[in-house]
Amino acid sequence: MAAIEGMARRAKAASLILASAPTGAKNAALEQMAKAIEGRRGDILAANARDARATAALVAAGKMSQPLLDRLTLSEAKVLGMAEQVRSVAALPDPVGRAQYAMELDAGLELFRVTCPIGVIGAIFESRPDALPQIASLCLKAGNAVILKGGTEAQHSNRLLAELLAAAAGGVPGIPTESIQLVESRADVQAMLALDDCIDLMVPRGGKEFVRYIQENTRIPVLGHADGICHAYVDAEADLAMALDIVFDSKTQYPAACNAIETLLVHAAIAPRFLPAAARRLGGAGVELRGCERTVALVPSCTPATEADWRSEYLDLILAVRVVASAAEAIDHINTYGSRHTDTIVTSNEETAHQFLKNVDSSSVMWNASTRFADGFRYGLGAEIGISTNKTHARGPVGLEGLVITKYLLLGSGQCVATYSGATARPFTHRPLAGEPRGL
Amino acid sequence: MAAIEGMARRAKAASLILASAPTGAKNAALEQMAKAIEGRRGDILAANARDARATAALVAAGKMSQPLLDRLTLSEAKVLGMAEQVRSVAALPDPVGRAQYAMELDAGLELFRVTCPIGVIGAIFESRPDALPQIASLCLKAGNAVILKGGTEAQHSNRLLAELLAAAAGGVPGIPTESIQLVESRADVQAMLALDDCIDLMVPRGGKEFVRYIQENTRIPVLGHADGICHAYVDAEADLAMALDIVFDSKTQYPAACNAIETLLVHAAIAPRFLPAAARRLGGAGVELRGCERTVALVPSCTPATEADWRSEYLDLILAVRVVASAAEAIDHINTYGSRHTDTIVTSNEETAHQFLKNVDSSSVMWNASTRFADGFRYGLGAEIGISTNKTHARGPVGLEGLVITKYLLLGSGQCVATYSGATARPFTHRPLAGEPRGL
Repeated sequence: MAAIEGMARRAKAASLILASAPTGAKNAALEQMAKAIEGRRGDILAANARDARATAALVAAGKMSQPLLDRLTLSEAKVLGMAEQVRSVAALPDPVGRAQYAMELDAGLELFRVTCPIGVIGAIFESRPDALPQIASLCLKAGNAVILKGGTEAQHSNRLLAELLAAAAGGVPGIPTESIQLVESRADVQAMLALDDCIDLMVPRGGKEFVRYIQENTRIPVLGHADGICHAYVDAEADLAMALDIVFDSKTQYPAACNAIETLLVHAAIAPRFLPAAARRLGGAGVELRGCERTVALVPSCTPATEADWRSEYLDLILAVRVVASAAEAIDHINTYGSRHTDTIVTSNEETAHQFLKNVDSSSVMWNASTRFADGFRYGLGAEIGISTNKTHARGPVGLEGLVITKYLLLGSGQCVATYSGATARPFTHRPLAGEPRGL
Repeated sequence: MAAIEGMARRAKAASLILASAPTGAKNAALEQMAKAIEGRRGDILAANARDARATAALVAAGKMSQPLLDRLTLSEAKVLGMAEQVRSVAALPDPVGRAQYAMELDAGLELFRVTCPIGVIGAIFESRPDALPQIASLCLKAGNAVILKGGTEAQHSNRLLAELLAAAAGGVPGIPTESIQLVESRADVQAMLALDDCIDLMVPRGGKEFVRYIQENTRIPVLGHADGICHAYVDAEADLAMALDIVFDSKTQYPAACNAIETLLVHAAIAPRFLPAAARRLGGAGVELRGCERTVALVPSCTPATEADWRSEYLDLILAVRVVASAAEAIDHINTYGSRHTDTIVTSNEETAHQFLKNVDSSSVMWNASTRFADGFRYGLGAEIGISTNKTHARGPVGLEGLVITKYLLLGSGQCVATYSGATARPFTHRPLAGEPRGL
């Protein structure tokens, strides 16, 4: 606990230095980090091989899944790809120091709301070693110190990566080594949750029980999502072939992803034509359907669904199916049972589409597109630190813009409020200004 | 508890309708609310007179302060001013539906990040009846439902105001009456804190113990500030007359305000000239000084300060004073003891000013201006719902922009992710788009 508190205090001190680091210094640090990954790739592969061996034994014993081992295991190409990812973050525009609001309050009294770093980020991520350099790069580019906690299966990989990235960054003047630190146990994470005076934002990724535990056990703001209960709604006026493709892609392209659909909603008018065809297409890919009464009547092979199915995130080849009477009923179902992650409508009716886009209360709402597009890279954000279903700060796939906050800067020439108060109050000009604060 | 939960569920349902309310309907509701205040001004004054009589008895008994009674008591002019405030919110641009990010992912696959309402706001405010219409207007303009809880001393005023504003808003087609609701007891607030599935944001204003209680006892995000420990730093290169004016205004113009200074930091090189003059000027206004050793040596009448003084929000005519060796030491003091609210530097050295503006980690940082400017109206935001010292979502005086969040809208023409994956992946175009999503 004391060790973690000391670490968090060093991260806070580092963040106050990083906050005024120029873009050039941050990019130089990112370049040194990329070079360190390339230069130490042999050591990284050796550390990763230790992790992979231990995990392979667990897979053989049936205690871990093969996909986890696949994501954990690095190759030389993957390591070089990690370096390129760091360089791609260096190539993104600096999110710090941008004026969002600029207003003259009076002659010689100018106000700016500028973006600035948040401070210290606590980032917890799954057993994929490539997540570590990506998260560390995004945090550093946005001027934040980060305390990282990766999946235990990747501990040797993570330990080496964090050590060499911190040293590489810290070698650049103006960038503290303590900008990047690593903790290794769940107890360390537990200790972090109490440090709301040092840690400004937690970004947990991974299993929903774990994310929910973080959300429920800290006063630190948490960015992320626990559940991904996503829906596709096939409207009465859908193009049937398009609907089949989108539903198939949204369910089967990567069923374990948070943005894969778990429930299919189908308008009653089109259900008799659509559902049997969908059952054949999805059944061919091994998808088990669990349907409402009307679905079962149209697709006799379908298992009856219970109320629990509408609230389930299967993350597997299972799909709940419900026939609805209208787009409004579909929207209501999604807002009631969904997790505000990603939902799509298939329709050729623009008015119905707009109704869906406006009224579905989710972080990504789509029209005639697969829910699987909900991703920072696909969205063109460069990289993502996670997907948020929060209703404050940042929502949806979160890139650099979610890792900054703002501060107001007021540049005066001796003004006092008494001058602008009372019976002889001098009026404010409140004239919008163009551009950034001079010289900052 | 059950009553409050039902109220919160009705607010949630109202918010889903409000989310797609056009600007015209929201502004019509605000105009009806303004008219209702004007039309019912006699009843409002009568209800307020009941509150004022009860509070006057408490003031006479020494259980309440006269300034509280002054803020509570309405006049006809104040009531008409409340109606004008509602109209001024109608005149502000609609914060909903603005595209912050627009990107073509591929031909016929367009992504927009647009602002949208947060949902349901829980707003708790002091015993000033004019706060109620202002908060209700801001929430409605941003498309949010609000559950209001005002100071108990204003209960009759608040009850009537909430009732007539809800009825006036609800008379406009497309605006639910349940967009504005009122709760009346601390137990109701307690019940609200558990309803994180219905209430999306709490905005508490008022005493710091109360705000801290809210922050520590709910999973709902909280926007606001508990402490306002603000500083003025008088640099070695300050214009002495300007520094005297700014320090005097920042401390005495309204000592009970959260943006009044509590600590004065003075560079050692200027302290022998500045501090005796400051002590005379502030002493003339009845300000008690509590100084560090060096301050006491220069101003013998000054009480010695203890460590607790650096952490105190007096909200009164008391000022802690510390002599520092450098701007860096001043910045370090502020980041250590401050509450990240509002801090100012007085200096004619631009480089020192920039160092202060960049490195002081506060929601408003000022150069040659009084801290008392930190206010939504003075900042030109039109109105403020509160001042936030949070490091996420919104920081500083918060206007309409802090009452919205974003959602991603992806408008496609049948695209699936499989097309953009694997060995024959179609590349994304990632071409920035100009403007808003068509027709939305």
